[in-house]
Amino acid sequence: MAVEDRVRELAGEVRPLDENAVARARERHLTLTKPPGSLGRLEEIGARLAGMAGVVPPPVPWSPAVVVCAGDHGVLARGVSPWPREVTAAMVGNFCAGGAAVNAIARSVGARISVLDVGVATELERHPLLRAAKKRAGTDDLSRGPAMGREDAARAVMSGAGIAGELIESGVDLLVTGDMGIANTTPAAALISAFTGRPPEQTTGRGTGIDDETFELKVRVVEEALRLHEPDTTDPLGTLAALGGLEHAAIAGIILTGAVYEVPVVLDGVVSNSSALVARTLAPESVGYTIAGHLSVEPGATAALEYLGLEPVLDLRMRLGEGTGGLLAVPVVQAAARVLGEMATMEEAGIG
Amino acid sequence: MAVEDRVRELAGEVRPLDENAVARARERHLTLTKPPGSLGRLEEIGARLAGMAGVVPPPVPWSPAVVVCAGDHGVLARGVSPWPREVTAAMVGNFCAGGAAVNAIARSVGARISVLDVGVATELERHPLLRAAKKRAGTDDLSRGPAMGREDAARAVMSGAGIAGELIESGVDLLVTGDMGIANTTPAAALISAFTGRPPEQTTGRGTGIDDETFELKVRVVEEALRLHEPDTTDPLGTLAALGGLEHAAIAGIILTGAVYEVPVVLDGVVSNSSALVARTLAPESVGYTIAGHLSVEPGATAALEYLGLEPVLDLRMRLGEGTGGLLAVPVVQAAARVLGEMATMEEAGIG
Repeated sequence: MAVEDRVRELAGEVRPLDENAVARARERHLTLTKPPGSLGRLEEIGARLAGMAGVVPPPVPWSPAVVVCAGDHGVLARGVSPWPREVTAAMVGNFCAGGAAVNAIARSVGARISVLDVGVATELERHPLLRAAKKRAGTDDLSRGPAMGREDAARAVMSGAGIAGELIESGVDLLVTGDMGIANTTPAAALISAFTGRPPEQTTGRGTGIDDETFELKVRVVEEALRLHEPDTTDPLGTLAALGGLEHAAIAGIILTGAVYEVPVVLDGVVSNSSALVARTLAPESVGYTIAGHLSVEPGATAALEYLGLEPVLDLRMRLGEGTGGLLAVPVVQAAARVLGEMATMEEAGIG
Repeated sequence: MAVEDRVRELAGEVRPLDENAVARARERHLTLTKPPGSLGRLEEIGARLAGMAGVVPPPVPWSPAVVVCAGDHGVLARGVSPWPREVTAAMVGNFCAGGAAVNAIARSVGARISVLDVGVATELERHPLLRAAKKRAGTDDLSRGPAMGREDAARAVMSGAGIAGELIESGVDLLVTGDMGIANTTPAAALISAFTGRPPEQTTGRGTGIDDETFELKVRVVEEALRLHEPDTTDPLGTLAALGGLEHAAIAGIILTGAVYEVPVVLDGVVSNSSALVARTLAPESVGYTIAGHLSVEPGATAALEYLGLEPVLDLRMRLGEGTGGLLAVPVVQAAARVLGEMATMEEAGIG
């Protein structure tokens, strides 16, 4: 089967949330030993988890894993980031050595970590945490031509799907999406503008920290890319190939696979948010299986999450990527499942 | 020594944060493998933890405990809550049986739980989780006279201090404050209005869920109490005795004790926030050792936290109390310490 067809097949397997289980979870919340609604968003998250699993109470996701998808970006040549391309590979080395923020936070919340090389421009040494799935040595400059071919994009989606499927088969019950790639907020902004229709000045941010001049250039680059490609967003793989990145594609595959397995996918920041737009276009019901872990400082995150109808769990003014913000939301998600499963009812406690 | 003097002695032992350690933590953050500032509020929280412990990196608080302070309230006779007084005792039973939200969330984040009966109107059965420290069978109606005597208030502060000290001596390195007491958001609103100067309509909320008529009554009751007592807020024990509750007093003692031991105290919602105002008046530097775990839906929480200069970690539209919102912030606090201690520097990773 052609790889594009495999993506479509995967997307076709996503089923809607079990709305009956959502409703039963809400009803159960009304019987528990607390004033109705007093756990606020924890109640909504619990009901969503019930809808994913199709059972009340939902299983508690005790085996979370973060997948950090890494790639490089031809658009870096336009000067959209102050960091050199080599930092992507150096940070992958840092992930493997356990020294990055994502490692510390994954250990802190009890999550496994995997790194997916889906398009780092540098040759990388083998490492047990690193999955080699390089499609190409990074993308081309999206402001001058397509970032990659359709087939590259589809293959990168399937690489994300592959590692997500293996993790779930090995017992992982919650996925956190992470990204690493110098300049990768530029394709994220382009994708978010394409899918939401918002102008680049509302979707482009300062990434790792750029000055006013670089920011204006970055907005201009995104505008040029959108004018050049005139993306047809009813063709998500075409849009991804024109404007995206290999890690953006892989994360879309992780989201689709989580949805197919009915496992919650906690999104990190703006790159993951842009991937969720791709996944949504491939499979509208995939949104039901995603939880927006946090609100990135990047304005594109706000634009994408509003479009997706997702309210972020955390807002800690973070903008690091790697999966860090998504991981911090995992204990809240676990607690949301746990209260539904473990709290006594009013009747059991002899109250009311 | 008179009990009031013991409270003053405790407050006098609170020392300011180690600003040198705060500064060194911020400097360390600039050397770590991430763009400067990209971990947002996690960096601030880490620097605060360093300031509390006086060491960089700060110790990771791996042994958190929540103390749920329980008491009853004479003002319930005014009809400010739809729940009968007996629910306080029934919920204490639920905490001891492990069936409340605070139990499920404490287990989920790995925190110990203790319950302090500092003034429940019902006689309670002994239980290993329950500390009997009843000062009186609840308060009197604060809208008709003082809620309690000054000495009762001081003794309740010292009960909170006592259990906090014992927990810390037994290895607890982070305290979460929790409360249970039908009608206890009324004294919380009165205390917050007294200390912040905000009018009762800005500090009074709907508690466990009350209708418009009850809400208007509740605001009026708080207004009457403030008019009756004309509290002198330079006298925190007098203000606490006139307007507060026994659990509000105990939580103030927990905050002071955490501060004396230089252990972080994560505040839950509006009742804990009102107690933090009492603690601040007794010992202004105590605020440095508190972390606002979440923003309660109660408007008084916003008023108190603004006055204290604390930004909440979470905003999940919760309004349950018990310590539930504070507990959910614990993994974020742990992660904040962990990134400072475990991340590689740019130099170590050979970047930049």
